[in-house]
Amino acid sequence: MAGLDEINETGQDAQRGGYSRHVWQGPDLELRAWFIERAERIGLAVETDRNGNIWAWWGTPGPDAVVTGSHLDSVPGGGAYDGPLGVVSALDAIARLQATGVTPSRPCAILVFAEEEGSRFGIACLGSRLMTGTLDADRARALVDPDGVTLAEAAAHAGIDPAHLGTDRDALNRIGLFVELHIEQGRGLIDLGHPVAVASSILAHGRWRLTMTGQGNHAGATLMTDRRDPMVAAARAVLAVQEAASARPGTRATVGRMNIIPCGTNVIPSRVEAWLDARAETDEETRALVSEITAGVDAAVAENGCAVSIVEESWAGSVHFDPELRDRFSAALHGVPTLPTGAGHDAGVLAASVPSAMLFVRNPTGISHSPEEFASAEDCMAGIDALEKLLRTLL
Amino acid sequence: MAGLDEINETGQDAQRGGYSRHVWQGPDLELRAWFIERAERIGLAVETDRNGNIWAWWGTPGPDAVVTGSHLDSVPGGGAYDGPLGVVSALDAIARLQATGVTPSRPCAILVFAEEEGSRFGIACLGSRLMTGTLDADRARALVDPDGVTLAEAAAHAGIDPAHLGTDRDALNRIGLFVELHIEQGRGLIDLGHPVAVASSILAHGRWRLTMTGQGNHAGATLMTDRRDPMVAAARAVLAVQEAASARPGTRATVGRMNIIPCGTNVIPSRVEAWLDARAETDEETRALVSEITAGVDAAVAENGCAVSIVEESWAGSVHFDPELRDRFSAALHGVPTLPTGAGHDAGVLAASVPSAMLFVRNPTGISHSPEEFASAEDCMAGIDALEKLLRTLL
Repeated sequence: MAGLDEINETGQDAQRGGYSRHVWQGPDLELRAWFIERAERIGLAVETDRNGNIWAWWGTPGPDAVVTGSHLDSVPGGGAYDGPLGVVSALDAIARLQATGVTPSRPCAILVFAEEEGSRFGIACLGSRLMTGTLDADRARALVDPDGVTLAEAAAHAGIDPAHLGTDRDALNRIGLFVELHIEQGRGLIDLGHPVAVASSILAHGRWRLTMTGQGNHAGATLMTDRRDPMVAAARAVLAVQEAASARPGTRATVGRMNIIPCGTNVIPSRVEAWLDARAETDEETRALVSEITAGVDAAVAENGCAVSIVEESWAGSVHFDPELRDRFSAALHGVPTLPTGAGHDAGVLAASVPSAMLFVRNPTGISHSPEEFASAEDCMAGIDALEKLLRTLL
Repeated sequence: MAGLDEINETGQDAQRGGYSRHVWQGPDLELRAWFIERAERIGLAVETDRNGNIWAWWGTPGPDAVVTGSHLDSVPGGGAYDGPLGVVSALDAIARLQATGVTPSRPCAILVFAEEEGSRFGIACLGSRLMTGTLDADRARALVDPDGVTLAEAAAHAGIDPAHLGTDRDALNRIGLFVELHIEQGRGLIDLGHPVAVASSILAHGRWRLTMTGQGNHAGATLMTDRRDPMVAAARAVLAVQEAASARPGTRATVGRMNIIPCGTNVIPSRVEAWLDARAETDEETRALVSEITAGVDAAVAENGCAVSIVEESWAGSVHFDPELRDRFSAALHGVPTLPTGAGHDAGVLAASVPSAMLFVRNPTGISHSPEEFASAEDCMAGIDALEKLLRTLL
């Protein structure tokens, strides 16, 4: 679609395929500059808040604003739609309202959140968590990316004063309601015969770092019986994760990232770090899943003579979007379906502070966080139509 | 020890601990320049051969030379002794012979091999394999490091013409015999009451790349039953490797390196590459071990709905060092023990072309390819004493 075409070369990842756009690094900085230029071109007044989120105001900023938007950053090797679709749809919907002579009766803004994926600093929805105070500013400043750069340093590099990161009541108080349009990320919309749905809820979701420590040694000179190999421990841990989640219907647990130290073909590693992503419908189910995984990992690792530490890096309880807004939006869109999702979103973080809603656009592949993520041009257009319609009723 | 102290800050790896000195990159280039300066300081004439191996001649280069040496590159996060101990011991032994007025009766040289560990381009003993023609030059030129740099480009960057890489009969024909002093890399010498041993044999050794392919997807939106997760396949493969090697006494098999694509916490990977290092006393045993591993991995991966390809990246048959040289050296050193080793060495590659031998220096930790690798100053001195004594009888 037109808006996405403008950025389809930014942050392409030749090694992984798809896009790698990580917060406040080259491609993300390019996209942020592109958004500002694009918003200003349709007369919006742009400002960056203390947490690096970008606001583009249509008319005078103020309280009770209708705010829509999403994010521009991606997972490593991600798809073209996750994030940017909501941003370009917001730009297009507002341009259409302008073209038909609408003058908003209340403040309206597009909001682009920083580091939604958590791909650089490990914590998803960083911009909205800082804004709402669900992430402590001191903890955020000390987060370190894989190259050893702190979040404070990265923010400063992007022109954001790290001393000012943190809860932003002023920004939050301006939001009357927030609506995020996003590509659907599972198979939820495939068989429903609708290009668009309204979100009902988000699974509870946490991330844990598992550090398995053994004895680094020579791969040729060390007998199998003399080994304490943390890679073997990590393999057992991955299978314990898989087994626990498979036994509890609806829950999901994934190890998608590992850091092997030192990572040489002829070297038994000394340490393996693995990240666990676990989700379930309720907070209790998620905690129970992770307890079972923890017990399984502890046993698996001990059997192998290694040690393990498990540290919670982030937690987001389950979210139920504002039922009144959900039903109103669904009705306004002629009864489109309402859908739960397993993916986290800034709208889910905001939901605890302000009335929030989401629109999903059909993804016929059922695949996301991958170059194979897709939405047809027709379905993207249906998403913009829906967003335009909602804004028109709200403004 | 003195010689190692001069280079103990070069290539320190703050993240992994120990040293990361990979061929023709910063720290390795520094070490190569350091060696040249050190050799010239004791009057040796230095030349770099067509494959990037450095020769330092005592007296006139020529046939039937007594050649000693080792390598300067390391595994990622490796120890201080693996490689450099043999180089500094050679420098010290020759300096001692010079100081006592020895004039060599036959040519003598120190030889420093390039890329012994294979840490950058994946093939161990690269310099000696190219020299002896056991690695094809076209294949070598096309090897790619993790940053996508070809070996041809890296060689050119280091001032070595990649067009001239390949079998070097002239270099090989000058070697009358080769002796490599090296730290012992397992527990072999710990209980024998000797600081020094002579090598008897090297295990057969190969490296294979296992590529597991599944379906990249969103870690939250994808049900466990809808997944084809190559990380789970890789975990099963690691355990198949562990199981097969543990069931065959004396064999060793290791997965110490993985590349996860795309490697995001909230992303089911699309592909996992894992490297298998397998070794056993005989070629047949090693091939049988790898066949069993291959069958186990195929079954494990298929059970998980993924695909796997297994490619042999390198192979080195078992080596039995020249028995006459081995016995002569052991006798000259008053009957020090002879020891097999599981670690590969350039001396093992040369052994097929010229009479070769190795001296091992005791490693009281039994640990190598790790910052914990160690040899006491007394044992290092005993190694230099032994090398000096052998050179004295040979020259």
